[in-house]
Amino acid sequence: MAGGRSLLTILVFLAIAELGASKRYNTTAGIVAGKINVHLVPHTHDDVGWLKTVDQYYIGSNNTIQEAGVQYILDSILMYLTSNPDRKFVYVEQAFFQRWWREQTEEVQSVVKELIHSGRLELINGGWCMHDEAATHYIDMIEQTTLGHKYIKEQFGVTPRIGWQIDPFGHSAVQAYLLGAELGFDALFFARIDYQDRRQRYKDKSLEVIWQGSNTLGSDAQVFTSIFPVHYGPPDGHGLAYEESDEIPVQDDPLLFDYNVNERVDAFVAAAQSQANITRTNHIMWTMGNDFKYALAGKWFVQMDKFIHYVNLDGRVNALYSTPSMYLDAKHAADETWPLKTDDFFPYADDKKSFWTGYFTSRAAFKGYVREISGFLQARALQLEFLAGRKKDVPNTDSLWDALSISQHHDGVSGTEKQHVTNDYAKRLAIGAAESDLVVKSALKALTSSSEENFVKCPLLNVSFCPLTEHAKKNLVVTAYNPLAWQREDYVRIPVNEEGLVVKDASGKAVPSQLVPVSDATKRTRSYYVRANLGVAPGTPPSYWLYFKAAVPPLGVSTYYVSIGSADTGKFLSKFENSNGSSSIEAGFDTKLTFSSKTGYLTRISNGKSGAETPVQQSYYWYAGYAGSGQHSGAYIFLPDGQTATPVASEVSLKIVRGPLVEEVHQEVAPWIYQIFRLYKDVGHAEVEFVVGPIPVDDGIGKEVITRFTTGIPSEGVFYSDSNGRDFIKRVRDFRSDWKLEVTQPVAGNYYPVNLGVYLTDKKTDFSILVDRSVGAGSISDGQLEVMLHRRLLVDDGRGVGEALDEVVCLPQGNSSNCEGLTVQGISYINVNPVAKAARWRRYEGQKKLFPLQLYFGTTDGENKINGFTSFASGYALPENVGLITLQALDNGDALLRLAHLYEADEDEDLSKTATVDLSKLFPGRKIKSATELSLSANQEKSNIKPLKWKIAKAGITRKSPRGAALDASKMEVELGCMEIRTIQIHFE
Amino acid sequence: MAGGRSLLTILVFLAIAELGASKRYNTTAGIVAGKINVHLVPHTHDDVGWLKTVDQYYIGSNNTIQEAGVQYILDSILMYLTSNPDRKFVYVEQAFFQRWWREQTEEVQSVVKELIHSGRLELINGGWCMHDEAATHYIDMIEQTTLGHKYIKEQFGVTPRIGWQIDPFGHSAVQAYLLGAELGFDALFFARIDYQDRRQRYKDKSLEVIWQGSNTLGSDAQVFTSIFPVHYGPPDGHGLAYEESDEIPVQDDPLLFDYNVNERVDAFVAAAQSQANITRTNHIMWTMGNDFKYALAGKWFVQMDKFIHYVNLDGRVNALYSTPSMYLDAKHAADETWPLKTDDFFPYADDKKSFWTGYFTSRAAFKGYVREISGFLQARALQLEFLAGRKKDVPNTDSLWDALSISQHHDGVSGTEKQHVTNDYAKRLAIGAAESDLVVKSALKALTSSSEENFVKCPLLNVSFCPLTEHAKKNLVVTAYNPLAWQREDYVRIPVNEEGLVVKDASGKAVPSQLVPVSDATKRTRSYYVRANLGVAPGTPPSYWLYFKAAVPPLGVSTYYVSIGSADTGKFLSKFENSNGSSSIEAGFDTKLTFSSKTGYLTRISNGKSGAETPVQQSYYWYAGYAGSGQHSGAYIFLPDGQTATPVASEVSLKIVRGPLVEEVHQEVAPWIYQIFRLYKDVGHAEVEFVVGPIPVDDGIGKEVITRFTTGIPSEGVFYSDSNGRDFIKRVRDFRSDWKLEVTQPVAGNYYPVNLGVYLTDKKTDFSILVDRSVGAGSISDGQLEVMLHRRLLVDDGRGVGEALDEVVCLPQGNSSNCEGLTVQGISYINVNPVAKAARWRRYEGQKKLFPLQLYFGTTDGENKINGFTSFASGYALPENVGLITLQALDNGDALLRLAHLYEADEDEDLSKTATVDLSKLFPGRKIKSATELSLSANQEKSNIKPLKWKIAKAGITRKSPRGAALDASKMEVELGCMEIRTIQIHFE
Repeated sequence: MAGGRSLLTILVFLAIAELGASKRYNTTAGIVAGKINVHLVPHTHDDVGWLKTVDQYYIGSNNTIQEAGVQYILDSILMYLTSNPDRKFVYVEQAFFQRWWREQTEEVQSVVKELIHSGRLELINGGWCMHDEAATHYIDMIEQTTLGHKYIKEQFGVTPRIGWQIDPFGHSAVQAYLLGAELGFDALFFARIDYQDRRQRYKDKSLEVIWQGSNTLGSDAQVFTSIFPVHYGPPDGHGLAYEESDEIPVQDDPLLFDYNVNERVDAFVAAAQSQANITRTNHIMWTMGNDFKYALAGKWFVQMDKFIHYVNLDGRVNALYSTPSMYLDAKHAADETWPLKTDDFFPYADDKKSFWTGYFTSRAAFKGYVREISGFLQARALQLEFLAGRKKDVPNTDSLWDALSISQHHDGVSGTEKQHVTNDYAKRLAIGAAESDLVVKSALKALTSSSEENFVKCPLLNVSFCPLTEHAKKNLVVTAYNPLAWQREDYVRIPVNEEGLVVKDASGKAVPSQLVPVSDATKRTRSYYVRANLGVAPGTPPSYWLYFKAAVPPLGVSTYYVSIGSADTGKFLSKFENSNGSSSIEAGFDTKLTFSSKTGYLTRISNGKSGAETPVQQSYYWYAGYAGSGQHSGAYIFLPDGQTATPVASEVSLKIVRGPLVEEVHQEVAPWIYQIFRLYKDVGHAEVEFVVGPIPVDDGIGKEVITRFTTGIPSEGVFYSDSNGRDFIKRVRDFRSDWKLEVTQPVAGNYYPVNLGVYLTDKKTDFSILVDRSVGAGSISDGQLEVMLHRRLLVDDGRGVGEALDEVVCLPQGNSSNCEGLTVQGISYINVNPVAKAARWRRYEGQKKLFPLQLYFGTTDGENKINGFTSFASGYALPENVGLITLQALDNGDALLRLAHLYEADEDEDLSKTATVDLSKLFPGRKIKSATELSLSANQEKSNIKPLKWKIAKAGITRKSPRGAALDASKMEVELGCMEIRTIQIHFE
Repeated sequence: MAGGRSLLTILVFLAIAELGASKRYNTTAGIVAGKINVHLVPHTHDDVGWLKTVDQYYIGSNNTIQEAGVQYILDSILMYLTSNPDRKFVYVEQAFFQRWWREQTEEVQSVVKELIHSGRLELINGGWCMHDEAATHYIDMIEQTTLGHKYIKEQFGVTPRIGWQIDPFGHSAVQAYLLGAELGFDALFFARIDYQDRRQRYKDKSLEVIWQGSNTLGSDAQVFTSIFPVHYGPPDGHGLAYEESDEIPVQDDPLLFDYNVNERVDAFVAAAQSQANITRTNHIMWTMGNDFKYALAGKWFVQMDKFIHYVNLDGRVNALYSTPSMYLDAKHAADETWPLKTDDFFPYADDKKSFWTGYFTSRAAFKGYVREISGFLQARALQLEFLAGRKKDVPNTDSLWDALSISQHHDGVSGTEKQHVTNDYAKRLAIGAAESDLVVKSALKALTSSSEENFVKCPLLNVSFCPLTEHAKKNLVVTAYNPLAWQREDYVRIPVNEEGLVVKDASGKAVPSQLVPVSDATKRTRSYYVRANLGVAPGTPPSYWLYFKAAVPPLGVSTYYVSIGSADTGKFLSKFENSNGSSSIEAGFDTKLTFSSKTGYLTRISNGKSGAETPVQQSYYWYAGYAGSGQHSGAYIFLPDGQTATPVASEVSLKIVRGPLVEEVHQEVAPWIYQIFRLYKDVGHAEVEFVVGPIPVDDGIGKEVITRFTTGIPSEGVFYSDSNGRDFIKRVRDFRSDWKLEVTQPVAGNYYPVNLGVYLTDKKTDFSILVDRSVGAGSISDGQLEVMLHRRLLVDDGRGVGEALDEVVCLPQGNSSNCEGLTVQGISYINVNPVAKAARWRRYEGQKKLFPLQLYFGTTDGENKINGFTSFASGYALPENVGLITLQALDNGDALLRLAHLYEADEDEDLSKTATVDLSKLFPGRKIKSATELSLSANQEKSNIKPLKWKIAKAGITRKSPRGAALDASKMEVELGCMEIRTIQIHFE
């Protein structure tokens, strides 16, 4: 790109040259007291993938879809910025900015540095993308933000202070307090809130608030939040949207026709006064930009130059080049009192029939893949890279970090991008995972003093495809890595064919095992998806799943040996049994499920140990996606055709598998829905594995498939759902805390995003569901919870993506006759618990599901020795209420550690307490020289963060739990108060 | 615009900075012998008005219609040009470039100068616009070119050498020889030729030719002409059209997806080889640009940088940054032999049903206004400005020169622009004319030693509206200015109410006069159009036209006094008479017209003096504009629904006016067509005044109205039409000289553009029609001539304008119920002549119609003395075969004079001879110090023009008439050979 780039070398000379240049427009205006100050904030909104892939957006290719090329936008901005020292710009998406930066010459880079240091170019938000806030897990949000902030810090030595989530379709509490206040952000800006909420805020002048997102941290984590009056473009209807067809340039040349300075100034002033009427203080902000704008930066800057000049000559209002930071500081200086906002901004609706609650589930398979890869990056890749020592050359984990960060985009994991873009995200994740897998293999080899051949992974294990285990004639070696910082026990299952297999641990001791027949549904999925993904037929399916329980130390491995052995070594062969004719069927161990023999459906869940129990019916339903006139149901929006879901089947066939380790109840709900309830010995909950798809649409009806649990718990309109997998938020049916809700969509308007789980409670008993990916869920009737699992829709919903959410999977031959609707397979976890024990189960199991055991396979002739290891000092594990969420090697050899307290205040009697971690135990072989606490995104020392103080109309909730004490370098102990995350850089000797 | 502009100040530093910058792409390639050389010529095509007005295009407003802002395009080009010294650009339209230039700082101007002097930015064509070639008069073409060339010369000291008429819809002989060779252009480039012609040229490799447009000058005025293989964008189908949605950028970053260097290079090479197969020499040219492209100049330049780099690494062909000049020089150096082309490229068709012959007549009223204003500029304004002395301050004639030049655009006078753009052109012309009228008034006052009140003009005289004459109770003073360089006599007619009016000349001698009743048709037009144009009701219409004959010296005035006088002073009162019952009716004097009493239609025209005569029927017909599926008839395209025109009426009412000076035959052909045949005493031809409109379309049929003359002349498929009002070209029905025509449209395919006139001949007798504006005309059957007068169509024809050509005129109240279809009023001139006298009539009358007497009015109480004057030495006039086409004051006080020999070789026995003009007689009061002959556009000394020599396959016609001798400064005599135009700058002592 030197052609385009080298142009910019000249800009080195520019700042100097410019200062001497005569200017026709006076654009020097700053803030003027006593006037309405219109802060013009030039910006561009550059989606990190949406209608085109991130590379296509950057390069400017595939323009039949959308005319957009970010490299040219950045070129253009730079040129026009440099030419007038009054002009300012804010840039957001580091996934683009960093590419562009790398291509610049050193001269241009120094110009950019100067622009950044002088505040004329401000990097805000600063993450790799503008992440989604519904379908994202907080760990991924932190990671993608950290990636962007890292480069900004390295290159420019600056730390962004502005959150700029202008486009995401609803806003989470975690965004406000964790990815806001805890990052050190002084403010958060966004555009999208419920249309009724916005209407109310116009009246109350409450578009700007102090937002406390955390009940636990309370006033200790506040952020000034500014919601745009309409959207993130310039004020509507005034022709201020440049590069749009309805723009109206200021024509101030009296020698040409259409001279319009007076009309344009009047329009500007009118727009300013109108906004001032709904805004506290005399500062208003105009977002001067839009999606992929500023390819013609001159259009914007020249017009703004003119407005600043002529509007200020007019004098009724004051216009100035500004940034969100300048605006924020003006707001802060105004000494105004602000309303308090708690909880979050879900769900988002932009019209009566337009609830953006469909995307909580859209592209459920992709959402599952993102979650799986996220676990892999944190768990195996980063940890093991650290443990074995990071290499600067490839293979390393950078490509996966990049890919996972990109996919957090609000048209990424949200599922609201075009199909080819989803494919691109998935491809990037797969490529990154493949590279990281080499890191993992190499690390495991080193840590176990073994050979790489032992660490073959089976990515299609979930559909029972793993040639190594299926055809193991020799001894099979199974290595399990535990990414948790706790000792764990977990059941392992692998597909096999031999009935005489015996499992032994590393000491040669036999481990009880059970063979369970592979279901026809799994075989069918295996057959289709192995062909679709690998391009080859998978051969005869395996007959059995081999189950056994593995015990693995924290950040360590255990190895198990599977071979054909003698008869009485604890192995058990299960068969499918049909219902025995009694009126009900029970399955399970301590936790039991009861089914009706008549309908085949679940009727009760009970826990023998705790005594908690509730009647529960469960089955599958589908909402018909509305496809008539007006608003449709689609990738973004959930609009059921009527408020009633159609049951898939009134009765289901039922088969049971019994045995000593695991019992399963198989239900074929329909030809396209298969479900397995799975109960393990000594496990206090049930797994619900579902296989949904291909959703039939030959009746011309798009379907949104839910699983609905109807319990006996009198929930009184209330249920709880998590915020980005972190805090639980109380949800009240047909109610919003900020305004009196006019209920227009009784179902869609009561859906919320879920990343960890949902539960119902009557203050004695909780019924909980944990999920394995982000989904939408709601409680439409008392005692009910429903989770949307998969959506297949036939029309677009008019929010830009321009495609129906009609995912299909094709066999390699490729033409459409080889395609069928996408099948989604996943697992939910259900439990009934006494209230006092429920949180502990949710938190602990949630962490286990997030960071599952990672399995590797090999074969051995007998002498293959794989040393187990744990990373911690012998016997040490983190406290049960603390999770290790990051352990990462920095380029200088330091470790970056993130520890998260997993409990909210008052959530659990024992565990909602300050916890202590002994750093010295985490790195037994190494000596810590120093430890520094950093901000959440690791771009500054924590102590540097000085939150702004604000006057709040209603006193905020004060924090319910003390923060942990400052890091005591002498003791190397880290204290964590409830819900605290502490980010620590550890420098070794 | 300093905001946008001042950015560019930095570019001063650029050339230096750039040279030191490291470059990733090698773009230094020049021509490589032995390879296909692909000359990449970056350009933008910026219409000077089309869908938006010229100001809107410049400013970038009204973008709902079209996204285009030329100021940003020029900014962008400059930035990217300066950043890589290998890049080149050609810019064309000076109406835009000059605005932009004026807004730049001096620093930027020096950068631009350096770019121009180094050949990296080449100004080509260089006129104010890219003029149309069908609906334009050669004098206007010269003027608009001169305006642009003047600024280019003044600012940069350069003279364009390339004609670049890439978009006009057909190409004229006058363009080739006059606006090509005689300007000093070395080559002419364009895109549009007939699709059959192009097909043939592919086969013959004859897209590049030596074009001799003049039969008279022959080989003395040749120009190398290059026709693009497809259009003026990059090669189709290869994704090379940047800023278009189907662009395919070169993706050469192996770290991103979609790396495509090999495919892109292959596509480039394939396109080059394909073009090389139809091109002589191994040089091919790609026009890298399109309409209003290069707003994102980086898209083009960065891609071209990459192509030059990678294609030349590949090595199969050689790619280079180039200009048409470089390409031309390479062609010239190749020493190839070229085909010869004569005549012109009309009509243009781009498909079987798509003949672009409608625009010859589209917007007939506007075409008439342009012609009128053109005469005013040349005749009154420039001449009188010179004669009375030019002022640098306003008022001056510059605004009219600008407006008239803009309106010559190929979407201006062509009529192919949107309605609001036509309105804008007309408004500019009116404003310019108003300013020039002040110049004229002031000049006349000075030259006649009189007061300005005597020089009131009546712009609506044509519809009998002139309050001063209508209500003259006192003495009326009529001043007639003669812009011709010949003594002339012409009939004057003015609307009056008094029957007792007497006309006297300046000496007090009575002048014969005649009163003719004003027709109801004129009254109706007067009533509607005065209200529409002035916003007021015109009051009672006048009863009579007062006719008298005025005699005026060259470039001089005569004054006539009209007052109520005694009975026997030669005045005559005519009345309408109906046909007298005989089988035929005759009207006229020496020239007589005969009409059938039965049908009312013309049957014969005869000339008593010469004895020439022919039977002739005349009436009105309309073609139904095709509006069915596929191609429609519209602003550009004439596509009749069937090949037969529908007669408007089989019989017409007829009224006669008889008298001593003038006889008129009035016909009401239909409620919407009124026609007056007018014959003057001592005038050898008949006027045919027509009033056509509002064309009825309530039957849902768009109509294209023609007047058709069916004579007794056996024309054998041949007729003659002029080229831009200059040369006559033989047209043969259903025949093209360059290829064997497949006839698809027997009517539309035989239409040609007309600006002066058409004629039929049988080598003994000519029947001629002269026109008062540009029209389309044809001879569809032997002996027939038809002229299209007015078009009203209800659907768009799909060539971009996006509007039906459905012109309406509205009364000031404004809503559509106050609107009606546009009425067109005009005059044609018909004559029958012996062949030997016909050319003389056409040339002389043509000149008179082009430069009509200019009338001014005043009133006097008796002592109002207006001195007559002539500008020439007493009694001197130019020879009859020489026309004065320019007399203009230059800013330094010099005169710019253009003299045009009006006859082709062999056109007239007496007048097709070298003529001599004595310059000393033209400026009797002043002493000529020196006279310098210039090129046609006055931007260089004629002697500097050194035409390139070319080898031609078929020897060209040598010139048929010698050029005049070089200017003899000692004698101050200018010789003019046939068809010569000599441009002379005269410096006075």
